[in-house]
Amino acid sequence: MFKKILIANRGEIAMRILRTAKEMGIKTVAVYSTADAKSMHLRFADEAVCIGPPASKNSYLNPINILAAAEVTNADAIHPGYGFLSENANFSRSCQKMGIKFIGATPENIERMGDKASAKATMKKAGVPTIPGSDGLINSFEEAEKIAEKIGYPVMIKATAGGGGKGMRDIWKPEDLRKAWESAIQEAEAAFGNGGMYMEKLIEEPRHIEIQIAGDKFGKAIHLSERDCSIQRRHQKLVEETPSPFMTDELREKMGNAAIKAAECIGYEGVGTIEFLVDKNRNFYFMEMNTRIQVEHPITEQITDLDLIKFQIELANGYKVPSKSYYPKMHSIECRINAEDPYNDFRPCPGTINDLNIPGGNGVRVDTHVYQRYQIPTFYDSMIAKLIVTAHNREEAISKMKRALDEFHIQGVKTTIPFHKQLMNEPLFVKGDYTTKFMDDFVLDEKYENDDLQ
Amino acid sequence: MFKKILIANRGEIAMRILRTAKEMGIKTVAVYSTADAKSMHLRFADEAVCIGPPASKNSYLNPINILAAAEVTNADAIHPGYGFLSENANFSRSCQKMGIKFIGATPENIERMGDKASAKATMKKAGVPTIPGSDGLINSFEEAEKIAEKIGYPVMIKATAGGGGKGMRDIWKPEDLRKAWESAIQEAEAAFGNGGMYMEKLIEEPRHIEIQIAGDKFGKAIHLSERDCSIQRRHQKLVEETPSPFMTDELREKMGNAAIKAAECIGYEGVGTIEFLVDKNRNFYFMEMNTRIQVEHPITEQITDLDLIKFQIELANGYKVPSKSYYPKMHSIECRINAEDPYNDFRPCPGTINDLNIPGGNGVRVDTHVYQRYQIPTFYDSMIAKLIVTAHNREEAISKMKRALDEFHIQGVKTTIPFHKQLMNEPLFVKGDYTTKFMDDFVLDEKYENDDLQ
Repeated sequence: MFKKILIANRGEIAMRILRTAKEMGIKTVAVYSTADAKSMHLRFADEAVCIGPPASKNSYLNPINILAAAEVTNADAIHPGYGFLSENANFSRSCQKMGIKFIGATPENIERMGDKASAKATMKKAGVPTIPGSDGLINSFEEAEKIAEKIGYPVMIKATAGGGGKGMRDIWKPEDLRKAWESAIQEAEAAFGNGGMYMEKLIEEPRHIEIQIAGDKFGKAIHLSERDCSIQRRHQKLVEETPSPFMTDELREKMGNAAIKAAECIGYEGVGTIEFLVDKNRNFYFMEMNTRIQVEHPITEQITDLDLIKFQIELANGYKVPSKSYYPKMHSIECRINAEDPYNDFRPCPGTINDLNIPGGNGVRVDTHVYQRYQIPTFYDSMIAKLIVTAHNREEAISKMKRALDEFHIQGVKTTIPFHKQLMNEPLFVKGDYTTKFMDDFVLDEKYENDDLQ
Repeated sequence: MFKKILIANRGEIAMRILRTAKEMGIKTVAVYSTADAKSMHLRFADEAVCIGPPASKNSYLNPINILAAAEVTNADAIHPGYGFLSENANFSRSCQKMGIKFIGATPENIERMGDKASAKATMKKAGVPTIPGSDGLINSFEEAEKIAEKIGYPVMIKATAGGGGKGMRDIWKPEDLRKAWESAIQEAEAAFGNGGMYMEKLIEEPRHIEIQIAGDKFGKAIHLSERDCSIQRRHQKLVEETPSPFMTDELREKMGNAAIKAAECIGYEGVGTIEFLVDKNRNFYFMEMNTRIQVEHPITEQITDLDLIKFQIELANGYKVPSKSYYPKMHSIECRINAEDPYNDFRPCPGTINDLNIPGGNGVRVDTHVYQRYQIPTFYDSMIAKLIVTAHNREEAISKMKRALDEFHIQGVKTTIPFHKQLMNEPLFVKGDYTTKFMDDFVLDEKYENDDLQ
């Protein structure tokens, strides 16, 4: 087993990884930018190393500084968390070369799945359903026009290096294609330094349902059931739940098997997620694979009684996956609590938390790195906590989420808590009748704005 | 189902009951003494009624004021929590007369089990193993001498109305009997207004293992496995866990069946606990029954996925118990966090909480009523939080408890957190090799005193 893990991340996921490492008796090294010098996890780590100034590219995205920190502290493994360097094949390879275990996918895994167009081709070859579209990258606008004509509008163009909705456009009519094409390339080049584009048939009102998988170095993979992440705003997930209210036992079996096939066909090592779009007829299509732990992993932990960070560490140590897949024993929902003002277009609201009350009791879990008087830096993403509830069924889970949200009190910054309170009361959400388009029609009701505990 | 429940209690258990009532869509009425006007649960209750001055006997132990509050607010049920009026047969009967459902045992149940000497006789008759001793109350010192001679020293004398270790004495030699006899009667008269005494053979180095049961109005009961509460100081439980490290499948079956028999023989309605002493040869003896929810109920919830407060409310509504008993799926430990100074004979330390950090993450549950700037009143018991962890096995649960205790930060008052940190590192505790005598030899190590997060 590893003796010392360097945690190459910040925020709640740094706390999350640190907690499991401590429980496993593994020493921890925290790294931090100067903006995070007062981060909670630094207090609990065995060692802490400053890796640079606030800008991510000079600190959390700086492989040299992170690897130097690992060398200086004699860490024998690095956990990258999510975001930052977690899906960076070069970083994974550098770790390998230095004899430091990267607790995540192999460089080859990342490379095969990181390029979305080639990932899709790999999946198609392996027999995993994919969305009709271009065979890989499109070389010119004229080619794009032809493919769109062939698969039929509406279509979607997507940056092969994409993520977070950047470099992505929906096109409903031929006359809109050129403008979308040009602006998407521009956006992708700015965001990822790669303007490569591919095209897919637009699945109308789809659900985003992903399958958690785990693979070992012996080529075997299992699934851990699904997460429904359809409640999104501009491709940012807001709420996740498992089981999906749209799921059937038959569909889970099919999607689970497809996800296992996807993982096994690339010899995937570690935990990962196969994201699918599911149409209203329960046809499902491979969307992309995330070769890392996901933000929403706790709901899977809650319904399987697993610790996915521990699972990652064990797989990185050469353990085998269990012989069977995991099926939901309970129902779990996660609300992402962001320091954003839902009444002002979800604009980030960094600032100081003056007062904090965290919900507790039966079936309530909170993963957070914030504390009373914590200053939320402006440099990073705005998620400050994950509120996770678990109950026997969906109805009970929603009731529990409502009471937990009522108890969650954060003063000093605006948060998405009022939005979640409203969502838990929205008839379509309560019925489980929602797609990724749900937020397009969502009208915020100000009555929840000042409903907070005073 | 009830429309409105009055919660006749304070502190963490008031929050606990309120949470479940809210999740079930039942309105809540909080009651409070003037010392508790800033209690957290008042903020979350639908209504709050002041029931008197700080002294318990004039507020939380005052049936008239509580029943008046229920009448004024039109509550159709009262949940008494633990302590206070929870095992008061007259109060249960008054509720009945007023047409308000008492969410707890019937007056008859309470009467039959409240008097310890007669409870023991009932159990003996039903075939539940009891400790050899007097048949009911002892009428004179001379009789006490004879019985002690007959059953053999060491013996124990116990107040029939007793609780919390009051009116209880261990006697090892005949010459110590008179002094113990007289002082125990005096203490019992002062504490309970009842000097009735009975005698039992002293079980040396026993374990305190209790079985959670639930009975319905149709005469059927089930068990929910055990809790080991042997870590006690002056008969006050400090730490509880389930499964017991001393338990075997065979013993659980025997004790579970005895507990079901105990509950069914008195037609017990609701959730309750049969406390047993278990000697080193795994013989077990009925000690007493608690006809209410217990402080340590969360660990049973964690290993069974049940909500015991919900279960109580359902049973009070006439639901049937499930057809099968519940067996542990996980391992759970609870540490009682008290505002006491472990380095000064566990003396209560009321005061103001200046700074608070509550642990979270996978497998960690905290039940508390305290918050930043909360003032702990001097009038009530010193428990301020329950820290509960759940994992696949005992070893993992202890590791998780250690990391959660590290994160638990309470500034402004002394707490038992350093004691728990030491306990989780004590070789005999880690081995699971402990009895109710464990704390007699426990030496506090000051190195844990200032180990707190700064």
